[in-house]
Amino acid sequence: MSLESQFKNLAIHGDVLSHAAPANNDEWATILAAASSASFELTKTLVFKPKTPKSQDPVPVVVIALNSSNTPSSIVAKAANAKDPRLANAELVAQFFNGIAPTDVGPLSVTAENATKIKVVLDAAIAGDALLAVRPSDASKTVFVKADDLVAYLNETGAEVVTVDFTAAPAAPAAPSAPKQAKTAASKDDGKIEGAALIGITVDKEIDFPGWYQQILTKGEMLDYYDVSGCYIMRPASYSIWEIIQEYFNERIKSIGVQNTYFPMFVSARVLEKEKDHIEGFAPEVAWVTKAGKSDLEEPIAIRPTSETVMYPYYAKWIRSHRDLPLKLNQWNSVVRWEFKHPQPFLRTREFLWQEGHTAHLTFEEANTEVLQILEWYESIYHDLLAVPVIRGKKTENEKFAGGHFTTTVEGYIPTTGRGIQGATSHCLGQNFSKMFNITVENPEGPEKPKLFAWQNSWGLSTRVIGVMVMVHSDNKGLVLPPRVAQIQTVVIPCGLTAKTSDEDRRAVKEGVLDIEHLLKKAGVRATSDIRDNYSPGWKFADWELRGVPLRIEYGPADHKKKQVVVVRRDNGEKTVVPLGENFVATIQELFETIQKDMFTKAKNSFDSHIKRVDTLEEFVPALNKKCVLLAPFCGGMECEDDIKDRTARQGQADGEEVDDKAPSMGAKSLCIPFEQPELKEGAKCVGCGEPAKFHTLFGRSY
Amino acid sequence: MSLESQFKNLAIHGDVLSHAAPANNDEWATILAAASSASFELTKTLVFKPKTPKSQDPVPVVVIALNSSNTPSSIVAKAANAKDPRLANAELVAQFFNGIAPTDVGPLSVTAENATKIKVVLDAAIAGDALLAVRPSDASKTVFVKADDLVAYLNETGAEVVTVDFTAAPAAPAAPSAPKQAKTAASKDDGKIEGAALIGITVDKEIDFPGWYQQILTKGEMLDYYDVSGCYIMRPASYSIWEIIQEYFNERIKSIGVQNTYFPMFVSARVLEKEKDHIEGFAPEVAWVTKAGKSDLEEPIAIRPTSETVMYPYYAKWIRSHRDLPLKLNQWNSVVRWEFKHPQPFLRTREFLWQEGHTAHLTFEEANTEVLQILEWYESIYHDLLAVPVIRGKKTENEKFAGGHFTTTVEGYIPTTGRGIQGATSHCLGQNFSKMFNITVENPEGPEKPKLFAWQNSWGLSTRVIGVMVMVHSDNKGLVLPPRVAQIQTVVIPCGLTAKTSDEDRRAVKEGVLDIEHLLKKAGVRATSDIRDNYSPGWKFADWELRGVPLRIEYGPADHKKKQVVVVRRDNGEKTVVPLGENFVATIQELFETIQKDMFTKAKNSFDSHIKRVDTLEEFVPALNKKCVLLAPFCGGMECEDDIKDRTARQGQADGEEVDDKAPSMGAKSLCIPFEQPELKEGAKCVGCGEPAKFHTLFGRSY
Repeated sequence: MSLESQFKNLAIHGDVLSHAAPANNDEWATILAAASSASFELTKTLVFKPKTPKSQDPVPVVVIALNSSNTPSSIVAKAANAKDPRLANAELVAQFFNGIAPTDVGPLSVTAENATKIKVVLDAAIAGDALLAVRPSDASKTVFVKADDLVAYLNETGAEVVTVDFTAAPAAPAAPSAPKQAKTAASKDDGKIEGAALIGITVDKEIDFPGWYQQILTKGEMLDYYDVSGCYIMRPASYSIWEIIQEYFNERIKSIGVQNTYFPMFVSARVLEKEKDHIEGFAPEVAWVTKAGKSDLEEPIAIRPTSETVMYPYYAKWIRSHRDLPLKLNQWNSVVRWEFKHPQPFLRTREFLWQEGHTAHLTFEEANTEVLQILEWYESIYHDLLAVPVIRGKKTENEKFAGGHFTTTVEGYIPTTGRGIQGATSHCLGQNFSKMFNITVENPEGPEKPKLFAWQNSWGLSTRVIGVMVMVHSDNKGLVLPPRVAQIQTVVIPCGLTAKTSDEDRRAVKEGVLDIEHLLKKAGVRATSDIRDNYSPGWKFADWELRGVPLRIEYGPADHKKKQVVVVRRDNGEKTVVPLGENFVATIQELFETIQKDMFTKAKNSFDSHIKRVDTLEEFVPALNKKCVLLAPFCGGMECEDDIKDRTARQGQADGEEVDDKAPSMGAKSLCIPFEQPELKEGAKCVGCGEPAKFHTLFGRSY
Repeated sequence: MSLESQFKNLAIHGDVLSHAAPANNDEWATILAAASSASFELTKTLVFKPKTPKSQDPVPVVVIALNSSNTPSSIVAKAANAKDPRLANAELVAQFFNGIAPTDVGPLSVTAENATKIKVVLDAAIAGDALLAVRPSDASKTVFVKADDLVAYLNETGAEVVTVDFTAAPAAPAAPSAPKQAKTAASKDDGKIEGAALIGITVDKEIDFPGWYQQILTKGEMLDYYDVSGCYIMRPASYSIWEIIQEYFNERIKSIGVQNTYFPMFVSARVLEKEKDHIEGFAPEVAWVTKAGKSDLEEPIAIRPTSETVMYPYYAKWIRSHRDLPLKLNQWNSVVRWEFKHPQPFLRTREFLWQEGHTAHLTFEEANTEVLQILEWYESIYHDLLAVPVIRGKKTENEKFAGGHFTTTVEGYIPTTGRGIQGATSHCLGQNFSKMFNITVENPEGPEKPKLFAWQNSWGLSTRVIGVMVMVHSDNKGLVLPPRVAQIQTVVIPCGLTAKTSDEDRRAVKEGVLDIEHLLKKAGVRATSDIRDNYSPGWKFADWELRGVPLRIEYGPADHKKKQVVVVRRDNGEKTVVPLGENFVATIQELFETIQKDMFTKAKNSFDSHIKRVDTLEEFVPALNKKCVLLAPFCGGMECEDDIKDRTARQGQADGEEVDDKAPSMGAKSLCIPFEQPELKEGAKCVGCGEPAKFHTLFGRSY
């Protein structure tokens, strides 16, 4: 059903204050103006998929509720008589709702066409004359409709509608930024800010984390959804972060002699499958090209999932003498892993950007030193650029890179879900690949001695880092970006201009704003100004907060007179007056450093306070449910690790604690064996099998 | 037949001085040392394909000759009784010779297995006891064999061997660099230089341009051949040039508000096919992914051949108000065009790197200004970075971008083949795509006025630029790189150290070399030094010349005493003494600028002197055969242009002038309508149809 006909349908059912396509700023401004006199309630629409035998078609459950209602899956399950409902993935949503994305589903996505194939669970709080803001079927649009009219519309579609009182649900935890919002709301432009901020991001980070994450990325213009499932568009706001990371990392790796290169994205089956352990890990996800134009290719050709097997035949060709070592190549490219699991922007996508370094060395010592050096730089990208704390360590045998010797990793932590996340990995491949690909050199001790196999490393960091950064820092008002990577570090906004302001003051403020922008730019600050006449300062504040700009500079007639500006930090809302003297630029730059440091410290404290030391497996699930990761003595055994995962998964299910609907597994996986180890108590036993422990290992639910 | 068994075979036939796998510098050095006492002759092996009716299988002709013999296809045709033989393409060679590349074919590629399917034409000069350097079947290896033994081997395979006296052939034109080689040979290290230089590049640019191009790229380590046909590896020596171009162009486009972004490489058939004219141009070359792991995809998904249709649905979504314009995005990515024509490194490859800019504007004027601005920057990349002259102009209707409004282009010229080559294009798409994709904005004059369609541009520059640069500048000694893009701008080499040199002098020279390197690096010069003990200075000279390093700095005990260095230019061999005083670094930097300018001027003179103004079609073919491009009055008609191409192609064939065996077409194509136009004579007639001419157009054979 087209958007137009949906509107017509609605119109039949009562008074409708409708407004088409408020996708951009201009139109939001108009809506806000229209809506500011009326009071309205935000709504949310979620699609759940019940557990369904493979032989049957699933019947999705569409939950339509006030945004303020807490809608746990347990209540949804009961109301819809649905087994184990989880948030539906993009493919299922697309299938039932005309190809749209989960974020685009709204009450009006329920139509006569799909009504018989779904169930609707309706929040009992949706009733009466209350004006509701709902999406038609595009997250970038909003219409306003009376609650009763919406109910009538839903019944008219023919869908099975069950009304449920969600107030019985436990209260949602207070959003961390709520007090700050209240504070901002107390400022001069409160009404508009509050409204804009709410309409910017309409779901709460703590209540619907996946929904929040989708909105924060799309509305913050970091990313857009794409019509090939599992692929996403990196918009300038996120790509510019990637460019900063590229520059930072390039400088470092080039200092140790790494050179950039580009190998083809295609790889023949024969070459791809050369290293057995390695390909086993990737085979199910490899995308195959089988046709060109209208011709079938003689042999299918794979798109690289990673380039070990693409590159190493040429390493064998190029490396003959020990003088050809070390060979250190890196490429910035995209790789394809056709995952069938639920895709997630930046974190799990079918095509993603990364760098992959591949080096060959004469000795293990040299290879090992490089592995650790690269890992340090990965840590530094997280700590020093993204203000995200990570823990360096080694992967267990279970989790190491298939076909490699050992894997080192930096592991991050997402406070909202309490899950660990692999940040980047630096592998020592040992001589395994060099033996497979015959990468050898003459023995430096003489040609009569046996040839030596090269020691190899590979290391990679992907655009996943951007997703981790967003998840850690951002809040209900939008993105929060660390100054060192923000595309725009500060925005200068003219303020305090009223109908009474003299033309002279108006001109002085406008000129001042541009002067400040110019001054900052000249000093290398990524600054901009917002002198658009058709927006109120409050609207602009909300808009730039949504985009995560670290520092807002306000400048009005009073500031002009006092030769000062008011600066407001995005991370904590703190307001300061800064004089426009000779130290102005330096003060702003110091502020950036302070923000950067504070953001890191806040995230670090959150991580540190959620690392729990445990000695028994019984403590696992209760701690995991408190969003902790666990540091436990471990034997290092592969079977023992599998066993820990199974047992904690089962225990978790028994406890009915499965709150996060997208967890690929609720069991505790090892994240890493941290380099920084607490002392192992004498006679310490492995938390899994009770055998003597070898070291502490970090366990957690993970992405 | 394996390499090992080939060697065994040879061994049966006589004394063999064999040396396996001299792929790298160390081993070449060993060979040279071994061979320096003996005298040996280089050989070449070429595979020709005669003109063959489609119903028949071709019988390749393998020509085995001394490297110094001139082997024109006319003599080959007569000897082998083969019609119109041309150098065989990679696919044919792979088919007959076990999958190897044309550059890898050697005499030993003729085996009992393929002997009956081919003909062999043998240079009569290959006879007697002379020691020959031949390739087994890998360009990176060389073996030495007596001429008679080779003849016996060939006869033994069972192949039809015709012996031909090539001395009857007209002498090959002197290679342009031959006098310079002679000059270098007169220097102290003559023997080794000469040998190394010859062994570096074994085919002459003027005689076998495609063979020379392959060697120059692979031996100069710019590129390697890859086991998926039409795909190549960009090694650091070429990728670093691409990085310099990226930095240069990014800085410029960002100054006009262009932002970088990344769209997925996959595109659904539905979206790809939205713009009919556009897709028609690309459809036969689109690669399709149809499988992931072992599952068939529901719908085949294309890999982008270009991103107009990938991006524009989102432009329609993002652009609502005129305030959202201009939207200027660019991406650095790879695209795939599965060409079935003969692939050529950098020039025509199935995957290639490029940037594609896509912008949307409110007015034609703004779009038009940008199209021309971008074209200027493209020109500047050629002129100011690559020292390659290009001509700016507009494409004719026949040659413009499918689905666009008009196309502007920079056109280059390859002196050795006399062909034009498209350098980069900047298209104004008009409103064609915005109408297809519904990219509209509200009319700034008011909502009651009709919506406006955006004016769009797209513009792209690919790694082809590197191929053009190599073809224009490089010579028979190897690559010649302009200093502004060379990965290594200068190399410092210790010289004049003999057995009599005192330890003190030896140490002083070595320290001096490192000091000079350090001094230059500190000033931002991309310098290196070559203090390897196991190579002679002469060997090093040849090695760095092969790699195209613009300036060599020689430093010996005498230089140490006089506080000076000797510098040698790669482009013209000029030697100068430069004092190591306070102006040293500045002098070197000036020299770079001089080299850069001289390289451009030389190439510009060559281009200019081959632009011939003609008024009749009869003058076309003789001028084309003199390696000219033609400036002729033209009506601009599409059919007339087709007609010119056909007629000049037919005339060329009748004249029997088809010397370049890989020309996709010998007809004259329009290259561009140059912006800089000579005055059109009164009553000037179109060179094709005799109707009134509208402008001058540049025609030529082209890539």
